[in-house]
Amino acid sequence: MRVLVTGTSGFVGRHVLAPLVATGAEVFAVSRNHLTAEGVCHIKGDLLVEGSVRPLIEAAKPDLILHLAWCVEHGRFWTNPANLDWVKATLSLAQTASNCGVKRIVAVGTCYEYDWPEVGDCVEDETPLAAHTLYDVSKDATRRLLQSFCHQHGIEFAWARLFFLYGPDEVPARLVSSLALSLLAGRPAAMSSGKAIRDFMDVRDAAAALAQLGLSGVQGAVNIASGQAHTIREIAERLAVLSGRPDLLQVGALADREGEPLRISACVKRLRDEVGFAGGRSLDQGLAEALDSWRG
Amino acid sequence: MRVLVTGTSGFVGRHVLAPLVATGAEVFAVSRNHLTAEGVCHIKGDLLVEGSVRPLIEAAKPDLILHLAWCVEHGRFWTNPANLDWVKATLSLAQTASNCGVKRIVAVGTCYEYDWPEVGDCVEDETPLAAHTLYDVSKDATRRLLQSFCHQHGIEFAWARLFFLYGPDEVPARLVSSLALSLLAGRPAAMSSGKAIRDFMDVRDAAAALAQLGLSGVQGAVNIASGQAHTIREIAERLAVLSGRPDLLQVGALADREGEPLRISACVKRLRDEVGFAGGRSLDQGLAEALDSWRG
Repeated sequence: MRVLVTGTSGFVGRHVLAPLVATGAEVFAVSRNHLTAEGVCHIKGDLLVEGSVRPLIEAAKPDLILHLAWCVEHGRFWTNPANLDWVKATLSLAQTASNCGVKRIVAVGTCYEYDWPEVGDCVEDETPLAAHTLYDVSKDATRRLLQSFCHQHGIEFAWARLFFLYGPDEVPARLVSSLALSLLAGRPAAMSSGKAIRDFMDVRDAAAALAQLGLSGVQGAVNIASGQAHTIREIAERLAVLSGRPDLLQVGALADREGEPLRISACVKRLRDEVGFAGGRSLDQGLAEALDSWRG
Repeated sequence: MRVLVTGTSGFVGRHVLAPLVATGAEVFAVSRNHLTAEGVCHIKGDLLVEGSVRPLIEAAKPDLILHLAWCVEHGRFWTNPANLDWVKATLSLAQTASNCGVKRIVAVGTCYEYDWPEVGDCVEDETPLAAHTLYDVSKDATRRLLQSFCHQHGIEFAWARLFFLYGPDEVPARLVSSLALSLLAGRPAAMSSGKAIRDFMDVRDAAAALAQLGLSGVQGAVNIASGQAHTIREIAERLAVLSGRPDLLQVGALADREGEPLRISACVKRLRDEVGFAGGRSLDQGLAEALDSWRG
């Protein structure tokens, strides 16, 4: 099995290589930056450059493409006009894959495609969709296009909807990382009321689940999540306890963000029963390991 | 008002220029082929060529882009992989338009985006959507992307959903043209049971409605249709009578196409009340003029 992975310098992408290599797959990683990962053949390339895709695919001759690359700069990606460039690049990838006989494409979507129910979990193919920002509209449209194109051309297609992630290499401004870094530095960790309920998953578990989805024959949308929803307050409190500084946590010191949905949680039945992903770390274990990685 | 029109060598596009010019607009037409139309500045260009868009927009400096270009080769466009190329080209057009200060974009969709109700008309923003073929999935995804992108960038955006068209310059293999050409040649005109109900509009009326939508301030999806639904059999019978050869019509000589929806008809309230389009030809008048054009 030959696997071409894009976006391997990203938060998720850098963790997806090891679980693929562990299965014995021949793994080819595309990224703009140089990258060394054990057992992986690195191909330097920029998918946004016209004509860049074919040489990559011809070099890797993949059976499977695991497409993670996208513009994901924290705080900016929601409205980045480059989202459209990534739609275009992803379509070019699929067209070239089809011309080169690739058998399966797995690409990455987001829980922001859903119209989150106030009660209960987001269920693939059941929960209505309601993309809003340019980012999630672009992801949603890409899924619709790839699904139709791959179906027509006899290519297997799966779409991994990621929920909330934390863990090693998280940029400092995100929820878990910013709280953890404050706690570890002995600074007050200010937060909102933390009432919102979210499914947070360790990024390495998400990457392992993604690799497993890639190597499976499962098609269509699949939630990649822990299946365990917690309030943000619970997560922050666990972090504070695990860091040994519960005194630093300031719940309610920041205003709640207006219009923030109360609940974004995932049904993981497909991931568990069809893909066969067995779970991953508990929240406590994941947070403890993340804290260790940030202790440096 | 400066208007850039794409796809002006197409069935609809060639009829959209005159009504625009008649309003006093400065009209710039992009097409791959040379084209002469009175009062129109022709710009030769191919939107599928990387980097082709910016020079066009810089030359025309349009306030409005009326984007009709797409792959529409009869019988082939439903599954043509080039649909994805047109998604990409359309996104590039919108991105460049935004960078160049274009104020309004009007692009063309299709009644095939709808999940046609068995009773009643397709109503914009009410009737559920259910794109199926690569063509309508591509149109639907393009609308979602442009709507989000234009909204974010302060560009007015309207999406013209065309229904069924007939008239001068129709390629011979389509429904009305093939029946008319048989009748005019004195050959038997074989057809199905003709039970299906459709909204057929004269292509010149559709083009005039499109021009009027372009020059209006109306945003969102707008059905471009006559508002008069007829069975295919009724249309064929009118054609046969108008051609003077009702004896040649063979209703039921061909099998009905399997899975063909019984009814595809349009609510034209938005077109009439918001755009102010006053109607156009009656079916008899349109068919009579079409027959005249084919009599040569």
